[in-house]
Amino acid sequence: MIYLDNAATTAIRPEVLEAMMPFLSESYANPSSIYRGAGHAKMAIGAAREQVATAISAKPSEIFFTGSGSEAINWACKGIMFLNTSKKHIITTSVEHHASLYTIQSFEKFGETFEVTYLPVDEDGLVTAQQVQEALRPNTALVSIMTANNEVGTIMPIAEIGAVIKQANAARDKKDRIYFFTDAIQAVGHIPVNVDEMGVDLLAISAHKFYGPKGVGALYVRQGVKIAPLVHGGGQERGRRGGTENVPGIVGMGQAIELAVAEMAHMAEKHTKLRDYLIAQIGEKISHIKINGHKNKRLPNNVNVAFKGIEGEGILLLLDSKGFWASSGSACTSGSLEPSHVLLAMGLDHGLAHGSLRLSLGRDTTKEELDKLMEYLPAVINRLREMSPLWKA
Amino acid sequence: MIYLDNAATTAIRPEVLEAMMPFLSESYANPSSIYRGAGHAKMAIGAAREQVATAISAKPSEIFFTGSGSEAINWACKGIMFLNTSKKHIITTSVEHHASLYTIQSFEKFGETFEVTYLPVDEDGLVTAQQVQEALRPNTALVSIMTANNEVGTIMPIAEIGAVIKQANAARDKKDRIYFFTDAIQAVGHIPVNVDEMGVDLLAISAHKFYGPKGVGALYVRQGVKIAPLVHGGGQERGRRGGTENVPGIVGMGQAIELAVAEMAHMAEKHTKLRDYLIAQIGEKISHIKINGHKNKRLPNNVNVAFKGIEGEGILLLLDSKGFWASSGSACTSGSLEPSHVLLAMGLDHGLAHGSLRLSLGRDTTKEELDKLMEYLPAVINRLREMSPLWKA
Repeated sequence: MIYLDNAATTAIRPEVLEAMMPFLSESYANPSSIYRGAGHAKMAIGAAREQVATAISAKPSEIFFTGSGSEAINWACKGIMFLNTSKKHIITTSVEHHASLYTIQSFEKFGETFEVTYLPVDEDGLVTAQQVQEALRPNTALVSIMTANNEVGTIMPIAEIGAVIKQANAARDKKDRIYFFTDAIQAVGHIPVNVDEMGVDLLAISAHKFYGPKGVGALYVRQGVKIAPLVHGGGQERGRRGGTENVPGIVGMGQAIELAVAEMAHMAEKHTKLRDYLIAQIGEKISHIKINGHKNKRLPNNVNVAFKGIEGEGILLLLDSKGFWASSGSACTSGSLEPSHVLLAMGLDHGLAHGSLRLSLGRDTTKEELDKLMEYLPAVINRLREMSPLWKA
Repeated sequence: MIYLDNAATTAIRPEVLEAMMPFLSESYANPSSIYRGAGHAKMAIGAAREQVATAISAKPSEIFFTGSGSEAINWACKGIMFLNTSKKHIITTSVEHHASLYTIQSFEKFGETFEVTYLPVDEDGLVTAQQVQEALRPNTALVSIMTANNEVGTIMPIAEIGAVIKQANAARDKKDRIYFFTDAIQAVGHIPVNVDEMGVDLLAISAHKFYGPKGVGALYVRQGVKIAPLVHGGGQERGRRGGTENVPGIVGMGQAIELAVAEMAHMAEKHTKLRDYLIAQIGEKISHIKINGHKNKRLPNNVNVAFKGIEGEGILLLLDSKGFWASSGSACTSGSLEPSHVLLAMGLDHGLAHGSLRLSLGRDTTKEELDKLMEYLPAVINRLREMSPLWKA
């Protein structure tokens, strides 16, 4: 098996699992308990909070653990919008992850209360800071723009957008402040993420995207920013997120993020080379393709390519039969017959959007594996095209 | 260490951890992926869904996994209330877990849209079906009453309340239907839970209360009941709860619930004997106490006792020094200086409510451990009372 779906999920690193094991066995106390024996769990959560904070240049008190990246995204958006119910405006893009997009669409249930601007992207999947600036209104409460796209890997100009928002806020009353949220789930652990340089108020993270466990995420909330809880309950996470803490998951997330950041520069260099090699190979050996996403402003481990005249699912099935695991669009929406909303927003026609393949490299990916892929991929594409009435037309 | 805080959390059973391990290591695929290798994770989730469904006499399609019991509670209440924003009325009790109570209180932010009736309880912590009946209004949309109380163990007459609601619904238009939610987090795995006999539409479960892992819960949603998502996102959980599934957690939950139900009758018998033995011992050896909660309508493993003139935290600290781990009120609110809202609602004065101790028995609890506790507890109480100005007065 050759795993080229690391944007969908990653394997837990052995060092991470090792750190989790005590909390899956003997150290099972509820960290909210006051007996000394619960101190181990409580301290482990504190240490993980520091690890996550350090990784994004935040303070530990600004990190709140969640049950997933999607929860963190939902919380950020709903937490800002539900704090009060005065008429508010949101700015987002048309290429966000469904966790953001559907959350923001759900506000439409509240009728006239919320207004949304969906910024269009260019053919590379980019929005500009100027677009954000022009979309600002006096009642804009939230700008939600992802750091890097999960399908095509395009990296948004978050710092520039942050600067625009900072400038706008300087001219506003505190009560009319604009909050800037970024879904950094595909970025954290892969490219540098610094909340101050980005100028964000809220930032979502998911552990299983950087060799941590599934079922745990975090939301960064800048000091002084008030948000309503998404999960009300006990006093956990300083009263902001109820529920007994997933201690092993949190510990694993802390370990995983520290390890990922430590090797990030090295890994990014390795992946960039492999990525560009693979893109070049595909361009050389297969005709009528389109590389989706920006050439350079792109996650180091992301390759996304559309093949004219065929369907992505067919490619996946044939690759699977040869032992290659990959994805078409986002793994989260596989099984869906709809073409990717990201590719459509980037201007691809339905046919091309349907024929897309995402190959996301991992820590262990080698050039040999990609060469092996390239032994099969051209034949796979040819075979599918030969069977495709679309291609013949 | 003698662990008497099983209502706060439980240790993962070795059999459960064993079932989880493959999904913490080699079987890491994203279950939403379409390659065959992801089938292992997908099938494991399906099997766990069946295990959970079977345990509460539901259909697998009615089970939705969450990141915690608190998320399930929040989802149930918000999911019903946010489906549309017409003026709605909620009935609940004054002794619910904070995850329910604060969720329902949060609706007050939406101004006139939502109205809440908090039913009072009697001195045992019980509400009656008649109270619910009398509180019903034409616009009642949700009744939220816990199956068993997390602090005092009192078991509510859920089936009787379910019958009242069923009868009321028979006379209503479908659009005016009342939904019945129960937080069964302390009950599942400990006493029989049958969604049809109880007549509930929604029911919340948490794995770590029955020797499963932390960070995973489930919401039962009766077939045909529509609720808005709490966590919007990808198509996971049949489009109702976004986020990559916590596969190891879900697998662990399935194993744990199956094991818990299999030994439930035996364990309930054992616990009831131990519980009543401990209650009798406390009454015999310590004066000026009050056993909180109902005598018989009570979780088999719950003992809650108030000691006049002293503070619960002092008891916990002295017990801790002797190796006993226990709780005052709910572990989730420890550290809080407020007395338990449950005990206050049951009519205890502030002094008694502050001096409460919860001892919750586990699978491995023995009579010898309780005898050992009773060697120390009277002296602990005496010592604290000697130091207490409250007691002297």
